Amino acid sequence: MNIKLNFLPERPEKPRESGVNMIMDKGLSLREAENLISSSGHLVDLVKLGFGTSIVSNNVKEKVKLYQDNGIKCYVGGTLFEAFLIRNQMDDFYRFLDYYKLDVAEVSDGSMIIDHDEKCGHIEKLSKMVTVLSEVGSKDEGILISPDNWIAMMNKELNAGSWKVIAEARESGNVGIYRSNGSAHTVLIDKILSEVEGSKIMWEAPIKAQQVWFIKLLGANVNLGNIAPNEVIPLETLRLGLRGDTFFSFLPEELNQQSHAS
Amino acid sequence: MNIKLNFLPERPEKPRESGVNMIMDKGLSLREAENLISSSGHLVDLVKLGFGTSIVSNNVKEKVKLYQDNGIKCYVGGTLFEAFLIRNQMDDFYRFLDYYKLDVAEVSDGSMIIDHDEKCGHIEKLSKMVTVLSEVGSKDEGILISPDNWIAMMNKELNAGSWKVIAEARESGNVGIYRSNGSAHTVLIDKILSEVEGSKIMWEAPIKAQQVWFIKLLGANVNLGNIAPNEVIPLETLRLGLRGDTFFSFLPEELNQQSHAS
Amino acid sequence: MNIKLNFLPERPEKPRESGVNMIMDKGLSLREAENLISSSGHLVDLVKLGFGTSIVSNNVKEKVKLYQDNGIKCYVGGTLFEAFLIRNQMDDFYRFLDYYKLDVAEVSDGSMIIDHDEKCGHIEKLSKMVTVLSEVGSKDEGILISPDNWIAMMNKELNAGSWKVIAEARESGNVGIYRSNGSAHTVLIDKILSEVEGSKIMWEAPIKAQQVWFIKLLGANVNLGNIAPNEVIPLETLRLGLRGDTFFSFLPEELNQQSHAS
Repeated sequence: MNIKLNFLPERPEKPRESGVNMIMDKGLSLREAENLISSSGHLVDLVKLGFGTSIVSNNVKEKVKLYQDNGIKCYVGGTLFEAFLIRNQMDDFYRFLDYYKLDVAEVSDGSMIIDHDEKCGHIEKLSKMVTVLSEVGSKDEGILISPDNWIAMMNKELNAGSWKVIAEARESGNVGIYRSNGSAHTVLIDKILSEVEGSKIMWEAPIKAQQVWFIKLLGANVNLGNIAPNEVIPLETLRLGLRGDTFFSFLPEELNQQSHAS
Repeated sequence: MNIKLNFLPERPEKPRESGVNMIMDKGLSLREAENLISSSGHLVDLVKLGFGTSIVSNNVKEKVKLYQDNGIKCYVGGTLFEAFLIRNQMDDFYRFLDYYKLDVAEVSDGSMIIDHDEKCGHIEKLSKMVTVLSEVGSKDEGILISPDNWIAMMNKELNAGSWKVIAEARESGNVGIYRSNGSAHTVLIDKILSEVEGSKIMWEAPIKAQQVWFIKLLGANVNLGNIAPNEVIPLETLRLGLRGDTFFSFLPEELNQQSHAS
Repeated sequence: MNIKLNFLPERPEKPRESGVNMIMDKGLSLREAENLISSSGHLVDLVKLGFGTSIVSNNVKEKVKLYQDNGIKCYVGGTLFEAFLIRNQMDDFYRFLDYYKLDVAEVSDGSMIIDHDEKCGHIEKLSKMVTVLSEVGSKDEGILISPDNWIAMMNKELNAGSWKVIAEARESGNVGIYRSNGSAHTVLIDKILSEVEGSKIMWEAPIKAQQVWFIKLLGANVNLGNIAPNEVIPLETLRLGLRGDTFFSFLPEELNQQSHAS
């Protein structure tokens, strides 16, 4: 189709460093993964096989290959890294990555406490073999981390070799960078952004209001994660100002005025 | 199967003027659209490619044709009409309809302000080429329209050529005819119904409690819209009294009494 | 894959008496049912065609056979039993079971009032032909049943021939054993468990927090029902301690301490 809407924000093509979409696959069948690729593959940068789902799912090997063959990076949720770690089975975790031919890994400490130097050691070691995402923030509602600590940890993990750092929110979007009601910790996020390079951060934003909030704050090409498979297309419309919530976000001033004056 | 439950309310066959189901497709793959048709096609009157999703989705042309070939009217969300309008690209909107062979269009002013005479002008012009649905009500929580204005606008838009008028609720069901908590504006709806022909109104009702509320108020054959693809079958059971919420709604009095007395 | 995580709780193989998963199918297409089997069939014990959806869906006969051919028991929701019963069409209900070759049936009184002896009579009669699940608890928020009555009814129904008794929660998880906000009636559930054999109870737990609550209370092999098709795999990770919520639930004490001390 050669019909183009004017004033749409530019989006980089995959593979890209910003405007990244990370999708949560929590047990799709092979055919459902094909559906995702068919409808939205051009918009999907990363698929996370959420938490320990890859342990109990069928066809994981085929699914990983399917994603990779379609230009989508695939990795297993950090909770599984932690499940291997707490059992002192890190050798098995490496064998696991090897068996599934995974070239991305997530290092997190959302469920258990890991000494931060040790965590960075895992990042450093893994980053010599695969692309590493590391996650900051607890899955526990009760555990609060000071902004200074968020910043220090994020930068240290990036220095240790993380491709990007993930700001935790869970699938439900009510911990870490969000309050228990799902609204964003504005002060925390502002402080983080003043000290950490924005394109190196992936914000988990499973809920539409959170996606809108980040797009309004950081523009069309903010990195967003924990997106549900059927929300990739709607999210793209938010990024482009083609949904009510961000309708005016990318329009030139004169068009806005015309609308409000008419 | 020749087993029939007695006392089920009668439902008109498609194509129909009342009891219409309008489904929100916000980015289904071709195969997912086939799934919808396979399970629920006999109950789907209209599919809306929600807001601007048709701009960022693959296979839109094939999907439109698939729906149409299966007796389902297909159109793009009013937000996209507005996105073309605010950019002064109405010619492109007509080319867009033509390119996708769409024979239904939605005219709305949910995201931007349009002079109502201008809106009716668009309805009139479009209705000479395609079936027009027009929508009344803002997507903005803050904007309140008086009942008299709802009524005047609805009737004026029907006179201008709209096949039906849609009462706005968004995908989330918390604006327009609903309060921010999702409950219905009863007084507003009653007033509308006293002055606008019921079968000409399509009520957006994405949430089950809203569907139940309208079915109890207006019967099995109320027109309902913004239904999620996997809620078409459950909605039909509500319409027929085959789910707990409307179990007694269509039974003759003597059966009710028997139940409560037993 | 020959990589095994240590300390995962043991799960019995299907067919099993405990650790059962009952899935709510509220209108899947044939191909979507195939998807469910492909991703999660090894974890699905029972599929309920929810409430009256089997009356309005296409391909029900093929879908029932598909589930059965894949080692999954299939039955229609109790609301449909009640819909036949209140219309005095029990002969048609038997013909319905026969037509679809269903070998499981649910007897419930969630929508209508049935004398409990009559209910047990239906259980007794049906259990001579098919496996019977019977459900205790009203779908009505207003109707409260005393713990003693819950216990008496459950045991009487098991004695009448029910394979298991279901504790009502609806698809929305806010009635019966739950408060309207979805939290569990702890005292009620404790009392039930002191007098009814746990493996004979199927707890409806459509919401993740409810699943977590029951797994923490009763372990990996609690019977859980009204699980959404795309939540079977995530639920299995909760049962195995491979998701944040139950990460420490099945680990030996020394590993926990190590984590918290590190």
